[in-house]
Amino acid sequence: MEEKIGLVQIYTGDGKGKTTSSIGLTVRAIGRGFKVCYVFFFKNFSIYPTGELEILEKLGVKTFSFALDTPLFRPSVSRESVREGCLNALNFIKNELFVNEAPDLLVLDEINNAIPNAYLSDDEIIDLIKHKPVPMELVLTGRGASQKIMSAADLVSKIEKIKHPFDSGVPRRKGIEY
Amino acid sequence: MEEKIGLVQIYTGDGKGKTTSSIGLTVRAIGRGFKVCYVFFFKNFSIYPTGELEILEKLGVKTFSFALDTPLFRPSVSRESVREGCLNALNFIKNELFVNEAPDLLVLDEINNAIPNAYLSDDEIIDLIKHKPVPMELVLTGRGASQKIMSAADLVSKIEKIKHPFDSGVPRRKGIEY
Repeated sequence: MEEKIGLVQIYTGDGKGKTTSSIGLTVRAIGRGFKVCYVFFFKNFSIYPTGELEILEKLGVKTFSFALDTPLFRPSVSRESVREGCLNALNFIKNELFVNEAPDLLVLDEINNAIPNAYLSDDEIIDLIKHKPVPMELVLTGRGASQKIMSAADLVSKIEKIKHPFDSGVPRRKGIEY
Repeated sequence: MEEKIGLVQIYTGDGKGKTTSSIGLTVRAIGRGFKVCYVFFFKNFSIYPTGELEILEKLGVKTFSFALDTPLFRPSVSRESVREGCLNALNFIKNELFVNEAPDLLVLDEINNAIPNAYLSDDEIIDLIKHKPVPMELVLTGRGASQKIMSAADLVSKIEKIKHPFDSGVPRRKGIEY
């Protein structure tokens, strides 16, 4: 039997469809009996709940959250604590998810945002990618993927916002945007 | 209570993430208790099975298929029969899904492909959009969305392929591409 080789996928750009692509990929993988884990960055579900979390867990996806709060939504949060949360995530992914959980598909949701915000350097993320178990498919989502990160990936989709209702003042809609 | 107003979303472009975005959106919508229906175009699941179908149905999504075969995959199929399948789909959507099923979210998967292949005109699709029930969110996926169709939508994400493993000769992978 051939050895399974997982690739690295990046979904970036300013259009709608990055997190939802990764969820769709998860559904496809679950349908094939794959084990899937999610690590969410910069999302505090207790303040900003989202429709997908419960369904993902119902489908057997293990989910983890790091660096929940950022100064963007909570000005009292220090940049240092966000950086610390991101480093904790990298350690957890490398030492726990890569080694013990070892899912077939691992999604690092919004991690690309850590780069333009200087919470993580692209070298730190590339180092993580290099330690990925060979069979694991790794998906990185979020705006702000740098050229360097994109060079380290096998698949890059850039989702361009041609048009978004936010621009006409339509507020975020439950079940659609979150 | 405010009247719910559904919008029209288009996912197009040559990158990976169009169908998976719509599936992710479905998961989010299901998590909010929305009713979701799918109409698949140009996909013969009995020949080319896909991981997501079973999970979507398990989540309560009603799925329908039209114009299953095209000359691209089955040279013996006539263009006329594809056109007929597409017209049947439009009728079914307008007279059955818009009226009786009336889901909160309706995905027309790969319908945009009908335009460059001249199976449907953009005016036929725009006419469908115009008949959409007000509260329904309508999602159109597939390469080849024309400028005219995009003008008729509220949200357009164009997924650009920066890089895809197909280009390095990696074959379609179960659980990832299908």
